[in-house]
Formats: sequence, C-alpha cells, structure tokens
Amino acid sequence: MRPPFSKRQQRLRQELKLLVADSFLTLHPANYFYLCGFSGSSGALLVERHGATLYTDGRYTVQAGEEVVGAEVRTVNGGVLPAVGERLKTSSGSRVGIEAANLTLAQKDQLKKAAGPRVRWLKLPNCVERLRAVKDAGEIALMENAARLGCRVFGEVLRLIKPGVREVELAAEIEYRMRRGGASGPAFETIVAFGERTALPHARATGRKLRKNELVVLDLGAILRHYCCDLTRTVYVGRAPAKIRGWYRAVLAAQWAAREALRPGVAAGEVDEAARGVLRKAGLEQFFTHSLGHGLGLEVHEEPRLAKGQKQQLEPGNVVTLEPGVYVRGVGGIRVEDDAVVTRSGARLLTTANREFLEL
Amino acid sequence: MRPPFSKRQQRLRQELKLLVADSFLTLHPANYFYLCGFSGSSGALLVERHGATLYTDGRYTVQAGEEVVGAEVRTVNGGVLPAVGERLKTSSGSRVGIEAANLTLAQKDQLKKAAGPRVRWLKLPNCVERLRAVKDAGEIALMENAARLGCRVFGEVLRLIKPGVREVELAAEIEYRMRRGGASGPAFETIVAFGERTALPHARATGRKLRKNELVVLDLGAILRHYCCDLTRTVYVGRAPAKIRGWYRAVLAAQWAAREALRPGVAAGEVDEAARGVLRKAGLEQFFTHSLGHGLGLEVHEEPRLAKGQKQQLEPGNVVTLEPGVYVRGVGGIRVEDDAVVTRSGARLLTTANREFLEL
Repeated sequence: MRPPFSKRQQRLRQELKLLVADSFLTLHPANYFYLCGFSGSSGALLVERHGATLYTDGRYTVQAGEEVVGAEVRTVNGGVLPAVGERLKTSSGSRVGIEAANLTLAQKDQLKKAAGPRVRWLKLPNCVERLRAVKDAGEIALMENAARLGCRVFGEVLRLIKPGVREVELAAEIEYRMRRGGASGPAFETIVAFGERTALPHARATGRKLRKNELVVLDLGAILRHYCCDLTRTVYVGRAPAKIRGWYRAVLAAQWAAREALRPGVAAGEVDEAARGVLRKAGLEQFFTHSLGHGLGLEVHEEPRLAKGQKQQLEPGNVVTLEPGVYVRGVGGIRVEDDAVVTRSGARLLTTANREFLEL
Repeated sequence: MRPPFSKRQQRLRQELKLLVADSFLTLHPANYFYLCGFSGSSGALLVERHGATLYTDGRYTVQAGEEVVGAEVRTVNGGVLPAVGERLKTSSGSRVGIEAANLTLAQKDQLKKAAGPRVRWLKLPNCVERLRAVKDAGEIALMENAARLGCRVFGEVLRLIKPGVREVELAAEIEYRMRRGGASGPAFETIVAFGERTALPHARATGRKLRKNELVVLDLGAILRHYCCDLTRTVYVGRAPAKIRGWYRAVLAAQWAAREALRPGVAAGEVDEAARGVLRKAGLEQFFTHSLGHGLGLEVHEEPRLAKGQKQQLEPGNVVTLEPGVYVRGVGGIRVEDDAVVTRSGARLLTTANREFLEL
C-alpha cells in the first residue's frame, strides 16, 4: 500500500494557508520523503498551491522517476537551489515558507540570490515535522516491523554475550543481523558497552573484552523500509551485586511509570517527570543525566521530545522512546529503552524484547 | 601519536586575524573533531584569540573529558547555543566568525537572541574545511589504513559474488567485514547493484538476486579511526559482451588520464576534464552523468571537488576520489573509483584493489 503522499501535501497546504504562505520549500530528506516518496539524499521539494516539484541532480534521475508521487520531477545541473530560485522568480505567489531548522545560512543566501528581491521568505515552525509526529496506521505497521527486527536481533545476540567477546564484535554482529533482516542500515552507531564503560550514555564500541561479573549495555536501532526502531537492554554477566539489581529495578519501575503516564492529552514533560520521580524516590535522580525519550519515525530523533518541562501535549499516533537510565561514573550504568505508540486510550509498546533483569 | 590540535587551532587563528574576526564558532562535528578531538555528535567549539571552549551536554561529560585537547570543556543543560551566546555577551571581541554552510537559520536565531545586540556575526568562507582539505602525514597514514581495509573487504567479498546471492546480502557482508576490521561504520550506505540496476549511480541494495551474465557494481566505504575510504569496482559474472568490455576499458582509461593529470597546481576542473575528454573520444561522454570526484577525509564528501569548470588549484595533501563512470539506462553501468593523495610531484593511489576487468 502506497503512503498517502497527496493527503500529506494537502494537510501541509492547509497549514500554509493559515500561515499565509504561497508555497513551501524543504531540503530535508525525511521531509521530502514524507511528502513525495523520494529517498535520495540530495533534493529539494517545492510545494505550491497547485502542484509540487521535486528538484534533484543527474545521479537520481531514474530513482526519482520510480519513487516520486504527487510531484513533478526536475533533474538539474548546477545545483538544485539556483533552479528553485529561478522558479520562484516567476511563481504566482511571493511568500515562500522555509524551514529555519533545516536550511543553512549559505543555502538561504543562494536561494535569495537566485530568486531576486520579489520573494518574501517566511521561517515556518516545523510544519512537516509536526505532521510527521502523528503516524498513520501504515506508518505504525512499518514501525512495528522495524521494532520486531530490533527485538529479534537482540535475542540472537544475547547468545553471543560471553566473557572474551569484544564490544566491536557484538556491534558488528548486531548490525550484520539487522542488515540481513532487511534493514538499510543502523539508525545510529550501535552502542555496545561493557563494565565501567556502561556509565557513558553514548559509548562508542571499542576493542575492550568482556570479563565475568560485568554489566553489558546494548543500544541498537535498525532502519527498515525507512522507519527506525531504537532499543536498549542492560544485562549482567555473572551474578549481580544487590546494588546493581536495585538500580535495575528502579530504572524498570521508572520506565513503567512513564508508560502508565503516556496517553493523549498529557504534557511531554509530565511523562518525563513520571519516570524521574521514581528515580528521585530511589535516591537516583542525580544519575539520570538525560531526558526520558524522543520521537521516532523516519528519523531516530524527531518530535515530540519527552524532556523536563516540555508542555507539548501528546496525541494518538505519536511514537516515542522511553529510556530512563542511571549512570554512575567509574562504576557503571543501566538503561532500558522501548518504543511506544500513543493510542486513543493510552499507549502500546512496539518493542517486546524481554525486560527482566538477565544474569547470563 | 596525537593529532596536532593546537597547531590546527593556531592556523585557524591566523585566518581569523586576516578576516578581522575575534572568535570563531563551529557546530559541525567533523570541524570540532579536527580542532580539538571531540567525537561526540552534539557540541559547539568556540575558538577565541586565547583559548577555546567546547560546549556539550551531560551525555558526553566523560567522553569529552577523555578526548578534548586544547580546549576547556563545558557541559551545559538547556542547549549549547544559549551557553555560547551568554559567553559571547562578555567576551573580549565582538566580531564572531560563523560557518554559513554549517549553521541553520534557527541556530543563528538562537545564538543572536542569547548573545544580544553587541555581537557582529561574520559569515566566514569554509575556514576549517579548507584546513582539513590539506591532510598531514598522520592523517594520510590513517587514510591509508582505511583504504587498506576497504580493499581487503572487497577482495573477500569477491568470493561471494555468485548467481543467486542478493544485493542486500553482499551489502551486509561488506559492512560486517568492515566493522570486524575495526570500522566504526560504513562511510555511506553501501551500494551493491546487479544487472540493469548498475545504471543507477546511487543504487540502494535490494533483495534482487544475481543472475549469470550480469554486471555487478560494489561501492563501499569504511570509517576507520574517524577517516573514510571510498572504493568502487565493477565486475562481470560470466563472459562479458564486447560492448561492456569496451565501456570498461574507456572508464579505466578515463581514470588513468585523471590520475596522470592530478598534481599540485592543476585546477580541479582540469582533472575532471582529463577523464571526461577520454570518455568523449570514446563517444560515451553523455553517459558520464556526474562529476569526477570529491575530497575525502573525516567526511566522505569534502573539499576539494573535482567537477567541470572548478578553478580551485590542487595542492599536496589533498585526498580525492577519482570515479569516472558510464550509465546506460535499461542496460547497465560501470564505475571505477579509487582514492588518491596529491603529492609534491604528482599523486599516489591509496586504494590498491585490482582494477582489471574481472569476469567471474
């Protein structure tokens, strides 16, 4: 089933009307993919009142012809921005919406030069990102597939966690298995951390070997048919000390509280607070050094953000990660991360890998 | 051996003096890594006349402490840009150099708001990118290691090219072997294309199976200790028709001509023309639909660009790809790509995988 590209463009046009913009330009790959299906890494989509045009270069002529729906394709030499600028010179309206978060100063200058003084540039507030934040049924089905792949790979790799294995070896196995399972690539550089290195939330896998009686954190994500999953599990090799078990219980309870709080109408910051409050009561709040989670979809970090004080209200179709953690420098860290979709009445987890504390 | 971070910062300061800038800000990961060694994906480096400061968030506290050289580390909550702005409010000079190509409109607005009206923002022309374009001996050694890994993996994967194998399977094998060889990841989504799909310069690997008597294009890159390689080979499964052999010979001759033309003082466009001219004489120019090559280093596409009409003169230490190709829609394509470093007297190839036409 083809994604409803035309419907998405129509929704965007409604927004543009409210914002009194005549047209809208995006250079952001996730945004133009969402609006017209083009998956190349270099392009620009101009959405006008009637019709839309995707600009790209000669490397993508065939691909754009095959992929693009609901937009005319123009292959240009000499850069897409001069071509877009030329078009805007003579287009019917002069108020052009641009994406402040996705356009560089240099790109803006290039556009301005090509389009001339007639055009008025309107910085619009994440229009497409806000549409993308609410997933439709087709998108959720794709994200479930991605989540299933991530969980399957986690299960397979569990068997390889043995003293002597290196962090990079596990990372290679994870990415290989995701790839074999159909992923176009990892959604981010796979995190594999052993022992005291688990205290780094963003540890890069190294040549370090696993020893007995150590924590292991795996944080993996696959991109499957353009959609991401993001899954973290922490296990222990050996019999864990009571302190570690206590931390794990607290992190899991924090995640559980967040999941219970997650429902339509709740503010994103309240979900963060639900998890943070549990860790506070356990005396661990100071070790939870990042926010609870982030939106997930075509990109691995997108709207909405679940962070302290965020007022944005959640709505059905939002997909977010719930990833509380504790990180104690020099000792180790624990993180449990799942992906959840907000439903009409609450939330449902997309990732289903075992969440109990595993002592291998 | 540690990279000469302080020397690089000094060179940048000399540039800034010429441009009458008091300080310089970069948010671009490759640029701040080059200047101070921080490899996290979120940060900002402010280089002032005396001293430099790296701003990052709590996820990277430990990593920044371990990695950063020649800059003070400041971990901030609430975003790095407000913190940078605050600092600029009270810094000694008011002329702040920014990177037009790496700063979004939204980031600029955030900075402006935090720094107040005293600061004058100067869009500087790719200062760090131009320093990065000239590799030192240490960097070239790292790039040779990356190139060696890419070539080794190509050699291994050659044995797996057999009728029945799928494009995605080969892509998975390539990325797995690079990872096992120490790569932190692929430098780009590995291209594996069979048969008529070789006519797409940027083919995404699919589930398509290889048949006898088909072209195979492999375009792979590893990131090893932060530096990229980029290698393409085209082989034939079976005995190739005379036409295909002729195309291959022409592409190889075009690459050879480019390599002969590559030396200090030559304009980048002349190297492109050396290759393009060979394909023109062979009646294939119309099928060479992209430019000859691009700079390579911390990023897979950087300065200098080898494209039609480029006037920039090459200099010793530039590392570029040489990747002529022909792409005939509905039939197939051929590309041969190697990485070359410009030396004092000419150029030297970093990639050494067999370049002869292989019929497997």
